[in-house]
Amino acid sequence: METKPSSPVSIRLSSHPDSHKQPAPLNWGADSPAERAPVVGTLTDKRNAIGAHAGSYAIYRALAIAAGTLDQVHVPDLTDTAPAEPLGPHKQWSSPDKIISLDPYGHNVSQFWADQLEEGWDIRPSIAVTKARLYMPELNQAIASGRLKADNEILTESNEARVTKAAIEPVWYLPGIAERFKIKESDLRRALYEQTGGMFTELVTRNDLKIFLPPIGGITAYIFGDLQAITDPERKVACRVHDECNGSDVFGSDICTCRPYLAHGIEVCIETAQQGGCGVVVYNRKEGRALGEVTKFLVYNARKRQPGGDRAETYFERTECVAGVQDMRFQELMPDVLHWLGIEHINRFVSMSDMKYDAIVQQGIDISERVALPDDLIPDDASVEMDAKKAAGYFTLKVPSDDKLKVAKGRGLHE
Amino acid sequence: METKPSSPVSIRLSSHPDSHKQPAPLNWGADSPAERAPVVGTLTDKRNAIGAHAGSYAIYRALAIAAGTLDQVHVPDLTDTAPAEPLGPHKQWSSPDKIISLDPYGHNVSQFWADQLEEGWDIRPSIAVTKARLYMPELNQAIASGRLKADNEILTESNEARVTKAAIEPVWYLPGIAERFKIKESDLRRALYEQTGGMFTELVTRNDLKIFLPPIGGITAYIFGDLQAITDPERKVACRVHDECNGSDVFGSDICTCRPYLAHGIEVCIETAQQGGCGVVVYNRKEGRALGEVTKFLVYNARKRQPGGDRAETYFERTECVAGVQDMRFQELMPDVLHWLGIEHINRFVSMSDMKYDAIVQQGIDISERVALPDDLIPDDASVEMDAKKAAGYFTLKVPSDDKLKVAKGRGLHE
Repeated sequence: METKPSSPVSIRLSSHPDSHKQPAPLNWGADSPAERAPVVGTLTDKRNAIGAHAGSYAIYRALAIAAGTLDQVHVPDLTDTAPAEPLGPHKQWSSPDKIISLDPYGHNVSQFWADQLEEGWDIRPSIAVTKARLYMPELNQAIASGRLKADNEILTESNEARVTKAAIEPVWYLPGIAERFKIKESDLRRALYEQTGGMFTELVTRNDLKIFLPPIGGITAYIFGDLQAITDPERKVACRVHDECNGSDVFGSDICTCRPYLAHGIEVCIETAQQGGCGVVVYNRKEGRALGEVTKFLVYNARKRQPGGDRAETYFERTECVAGVQDMRFQELMPDVLHWLGIEHINRFVSMSDMKYDAIVQQGIDISERVALPDDLIPDDASVEMDAKKAAGYFTLKVPSDDKLKVAKGRGLHE
Repeated sequence: METKPSSPVSIRLSSHPDSHKQPAPLNWGADSPAERAPVVGTLTDKRNAIGAHAGSYAIYRALAIAAGTLDQVHVPDLTDTAPAEPLGPHKQWSSPDKIISLDPYGHNVSQFWADQLEEGWDIRPSIAVTKARLYMPELNQAIASGRLKADNEILTESNEARVTKAAIEPVWYLPGIAERFKIKESDLRRALYEQTGGMFTELVTRNDLKIFLPPIGGITAYIFGDLQAITDPERKVACRVHDECNGSDVFGSDICTCRPYLAHGIEVCIETAQQGGCGVVVYNRKEGRALGEVTKFLVYNARKRQPGGDRAETYFERTECVAGVQDMRFQELMPDVLHWLGIEHINRFVSMSDMKYDAIVQQGIDISERVALPDDLIPDDASVEMDAKKAAGYFTLKVPSDDKLKVAKGRGLHE
């Protein structure tokens, strides 16, 4: 391990450009990784990003250093960590405005910037690609009912689904983010700084640094079937874009349709993969419509207690009273992961959300069929949410009547 | 809605004390909420915390304001949002060193600080308590096999478990955090600032502000059975403390035991509640031992590819090569939520982790029985992890032999 000062001098209380150091130049959207150059989010001389790697977990890293359990000069040994399956390059990677919220080269840093790593640059992967086998009770049910069949390739005889999966950290190219939202970069920087209570002074003092590693949750992409199918126009692609809902996804809370929809999406993906295509499930860490779980539970209480009970006609209103918005998820950035995977066409899009549909289509990706959740998978208490979403224009074949929306269909708080 | 300036003047680029404003005084660990006073993490004159509410989701809030979809002067309407079940107060709430990483009064702000809210202070709940019904396939299996029985109270005839649940945001009292880790507050502040790449200048410039709202994931506590049982020495308490593992908890990846252990913990909690006690499952957002999912997947690849294959004897070593530590979770702060719930004794602790056990016992909470995961619930590919943990001193009745640890038992990357 090379010797470094015990406290890096590159971090200063006044975060202004330092004439002694030159951030590594970076050309977002350049034609090759060599021209693009690496994102350096580590506390070294070459640092060319605001923030730190690993999203929120940078705080735990800082705590580990404060507590003396982690050596602050530790540089990762990346031996044997490269992607388990080759992925890309795709033409979308060198388009400066298609991908702006992740680093398309983030999984192959050892390959693309071997020379710099050799010279001692501390460059870290922001994406990791591995393989896994999934065992989900819902798949057992699909097999038992004859909807899915084991083929010993996608789905093993022991009912496990084989999958390639990628964990992706957010890497924001600030000029691109501003452009996507049609706002000025300076306004974006100022809001990110002020409205977080002063997070990262460099957002407003270092306009020369264009990359921001925000401390938010990332994305996991699960790919069922042959990765080559994604870019083959002759083979079908199924896709579900799922935003985290811990209460349903993990604990099976019956107030929403999140886990049933996720399991249904996985089933459609496996089916499509078995037909020679492939299926992609994107899992975004955006709990409670990116409002967080505290706000979500406050809204649950308000919905259940309001005069007249929990009903579809006031579903969105209750969220807006508490949070100020109905939804804070911003599907505008969501298609980036689809561009990264090289997706140009989705044959079966397993989602009711018009916001997701619109965001994807606006980014130039075709969607030919939309697959709604079968009625028999909707949990008892979730009909309020389903009716409210259908009435608000979410994708459905049957729009509920005004009278139906007025009826309290959710349980009370103490039932 | 009251009128405020369109851009709050309280946030400044140089984060130094301002003679024109006085943060609301705060006395951590005071005897009553009135003496303690509220944590104010909003961008107002009374602000007495570093950071912003909602953890990581403050970034999405900032983006919503930048994009013009959220009015920055929106103040939440807290009507009907109060806890669905009374919780506390407990004597632990007024001990200055028992709870240092959450606000014990955070769920009842409308009740405790009604006067200040009336005066226009923007005080927000950092905890929300609601009720839910859970439907998990694993509970169906437990019922089908006769291990659990519906009682129409804890477990309905339709196999749903009734639960009270609390979402809890991190609220760090910095002097208490420093003391818990036996380090100086100034060293803690400096590491949190420097090692995150300069997050929150106020950490090092505003020593008068003792509260930090870190942008990390929070905690969800699921309580099965009567909340009164928690503090009744005659009634039993079961407990599982679970750290998030999205790959297993949601997708059922078979490389670890996370979801099987979680489901087993819920089963033990329901059983204990049905016997007149109660069960508590604590879910912490600490993905991949608080290293994040990218590092976790890098380690999976390194384990599978290393010469000799994936085996227990090199399990911890591979993580340390990549991450610099085997584990970054810091169980030191974990018992705070148990103190908040008023727990003084755990009869059945459903975890193998010695680190968790030690952290809880060191905080003065008794544990009488430890419950290990039944062997038949261990997935195929997870035996490497289980053997490594047992050999490292995790709780078990059977320590595996050295020879057993050398055998590659995990699947290869492409199996």
